Amino acid sequence: MTTNQIYSEIKKKGSMLCVGLDTDYTKIPDCVKDGRSVTEAVLEFNRRIIDATAPHCVAFKPNLAFYEYLGKDGLEVLEKTVAHIRDNHPGQFIIADAKRGDIGNTARMYAKSLFETFDFDAVTLSPYMGSETVTPFLDYPGRYAIVVALSSNPTSYDFQNALNEGKPLYQSVMEKMMEISTPENMMFVVGATKADKFKEIRTFCPDNFLLVPGVGAQGGSAEEVIAGGANSKGGLLINSSRGVIYASAGDDFAEAAAKAASRTALATI
Amino acid sequence: MTTNQIYSEIKKKGSMLCVGLDTDYTKIPDCVKDGRSVTEAVLEFNRRIIDATAPHCVAFKPNLAFYEYLGKDGLEVLEKTVAHIRDNHPGQFIIADAKRGDIGNTARMYAKSLFETFDFDAVTLSPYMGSETVTPFLDYPGRYAIVVALSSNPTSYDFQNALNEGKPLYQSVMEKMMEISTPENMMFVVGATKADKFKEIRTFCPDNFLLVPGVGAQGGSAEEVIAGGANSKGGLLINSSRGVIYASAGDDFAEAAAKAASRTALATI
Repeated sequence: MTTNQIYSEIKKKGSMLCVGLDTDYTKIPDCVKDGRSVTEAVLEFNRRIIDATAPHCVAFKPNLAFYEYLGKDGLEVLEKTVAHIRDNHPGQFIIADAKRGDIGNTARMYAKSLFETFDFDAVTLSPYMGSETVTPFLDYPGRYAIVVALSSNPTSYDFQNALNEGKPLYQSVMEKMMEISTPENMMFVVGATKADKFKEIRTFCPDNFLLVPGVGAQGGSAEEVIAGGANSKGGLLINSSRGVIYASAGDDFAEAAAKAASRTALATI
Repeated sequence: MTTNQIYSEIKKKGSMLCVGLDTDYTKIPDCVKDGRSVTEAVLEFNRRIIDATAPHCVAFKPNLAFYEYLGKDGLEVLEKTVAHIRDNHPGQFIIADAKRGDIGNTARMYAKSLFETFDFDAVTLSPYMGSETVTPFLDYPGRYAIVVALSSNPTSYDFQNALNEGKPLYQSVMEKMMEISTPENMMFVVGATKADKFKEIRTFCPDNFLLVPGVGAQGGSAEEVIAGGANSKGGLLINSSRGVIYASAGDDFAEAAAKAASRTALATI
């Protein structure tokens, strides 16, 4: 998918929302659990959440931890979830939230796994081991590495503000990754809880899409993020997971998710 | 497993070797491939490598990328590989080379996945998102977080030498992680290609085990690592993957792997 195609979806839907599929069996409503195995219930929940929220979002982001802990059957649910989106909602951008990051030899296998075996459009990566860990993901036209720069969580500043060649580490990470990539194969994670940083980040990174976790459950504001971070192509994918998919624990969970999605990350550009 | 138990295995075997199971189907000898599906061949290769090298090593380290790219059947091979080690070689320490690292909520699911679903003794983690991403792994007695501090790959210094509160980032990572852990639930990755750093690292981190990749294919020397990094409990797990498991591509692959293993990471302490 090109960034122009993503932008065209954003304009069509009036939304920059990415729905995070952090599906936890213990939080699935009883009406979905009844008569189903754990993995059947997770898949059915995902299908109904996807169908209900797709008119209000431009991307879905399964969080791999929530599938891997179910073992091999969990990976089957992951495959079927991606296939359900591809078959029924072809304009959606599908992100593997995986935070992988390993030496070149291993990174090539992760790229093969996430782009070929599982058919994701993009994957989140951790930059700690340097640019070599990202390059194998850049060789797939229309697919994206999404490198964590400044995360949304409480301990993000433990290390992300270290000084590298005179610059904050998150900036140094972004600049070094921009040297080896283009906005057509590279995006960055910048957390919504750092809303005050978006204007500054746009001075050295005007063009790349930013994936923005941290609205909703983590306390970030979509409005502030859009005010500081939007660019002429949209430029933002604003993620909400728990705030959308667990909007109701009752029989109305899918409608409630649709309503929550329709209120989040509205884009007027 | 306690560090005393690991040390006792090191003394018994006279070895600090960890065998990395980065099993790539394209590199498996034909005598193993013949008459088997891809996943059957990977599992059979692992079993024969494990049985041949177990007398010469104290740990095995499957690299998850190499199993995930085979989809759900790959995870079944991973489960069966761990079970084969547990059932036949009970003293071995089993490490998931996963380089995970995500916010607390997600980290808890990864810990559940790797320690409960897959029954690993330890998992490698990336520290970029801070201490919160590691804490859920510390709540499992006898299991270990192994945090990447200074990696062995060519681009490790892209970011790992940044200055955090006046110290190199890899040192800052280790010190911050040591504040929230003990040597009974925390180890660190330090690459063999940084052999000159081990003495310095032992001044601020005398007690934790270090997992050391980078001997063999990547060029590091086990002797230099042991000279600088061993402590009174051994303190090192020296990994070799390709140098051991692909020592021969012929019918003698298992014997050749055993020979390569018996020459690597000899410990006389």
